[in-house]
Amino acid sequence: MGKIDITKVRTRTGSGYPSPYDEPMAGRSRKPLGDAAGLTQFGVNLLLLEPGAWSSQRHWHTGEDEFVFLLSGEVVLVTDAGEEVLQAGDCAGFPKGKRDGHHLVNRSKSKAAVCLEVGTRADVDFCGYPDIDMIIDSKVGKYTHRDGTPYPPKRSRTLGAPKPKKAAKAMKKKAK
Amino acid sequence: MGKIDITKVRTRTGSGYPSPYDEPMAGRSRKPLGDAAGLTQFGVNLLLLEPGAWSSQRHWHTGEDEFVFLLSGEVVLVTDAGEEVLQAGDCAGFPKGKRDGHHLVNRSKSKAAVCLEVGTRADVDFCGYPDIDMIIDSKVGKYTHRDGTPYPPKRSRTLGAPKPKKAAKAMKKKAK
Repeated sequence: MGKIDITKVRTRTGSGYPSPYDEPMAGRSRKPLGDAAGLTQFGVNLLLLEPGAWSSQRHWHTGEDEFVFLLSGEVVLVTDAGEEVLQAGDCAGFPKGKRDGHHLVNRSKSKAAVCLEVGTRADVDFCGYPDIDMIIDSKVGKYTHRDGTPYPPKRSRTLGAPKPKKAAKAMKKKAK
Repeated sequence: MGKIDITKVRTRTGSGYPSPYDEPMAGRSRKPLGDAAGLTQFGVNLLLLEPGAWSSQRHWHTGEDEFVFLLSGEVVLVTDAGEEVLQAGDCAGFPKGKRDGHHLVNRSKSKAAVCLEVGTRADVDFCGYPDIDMIIDSKVGKYTHRDGTPYPPKRSRTLGAPKPKKAAKAMKKKAK
């Protein structure tokens, strides 16, 4: 029926950013609720930030609106204008085309934060990261330096890729 | 800065449906959080359903994904398949093109329910209401009978229209 069984939605932990930019997201987990319901126009994630974790590198989109609503815990929203604390019930939105890098940081030493994040799925988008030498252009489809030079392939598991054990099993199966 | 001051977001109560289809929404209030942040690709509303109130007439969209996440209280989600209870932390999604009429009903006699609702803003959409003789086609831009015949203009205040006092003041000003 219509209700999403959250317990059955696969959790994705970490980030597909090239190393070392993925490190602050080691304690970030997402459950893609919108995907679970078959939505395609926007994504909705149940986002868990362990103490110290970031929601992302600070970024902005040319083609995708974004929205976050804090469900529990406390995070710091960082934008060009500075820092603001978000508590349960607080929310923020980031219109496409506004080149103001934003992200959430859980500065708590003991308490996780849980957030609902919504973002458009646009065919054409450019995402800029004001603090680091990284961009992603939908025409290219992968993270590059600002001059377009690609990053070397990641050695560690990337977001959405099969777990090492599963991948080994699949390769074994293929080899038979 | 980025955080939305929810206390400053205007509450819209009731529905723009033609009478009497607007009656079950008399106890429905929305705060358009996404609009407050300048988002245009999808809407995000903080939806309050007083005891007895419905989120909408049961409906489906051809062009717009929808998603709801219950923040507090309890509602019944009604779809073609039947009824399901949603409690705080439960959610549901409704992909565009799936012609399964859905809505939320607060059957509590004393407790309001609060929900976050997200919906795409599509240029082209058709919305069907399986339980009543009403449709809305983006090509027409207003509620009509299924055969396209328009409904008479509403006497009562429609959604988003100025409050009677304000409207009277504006007319007075214009007359000067």
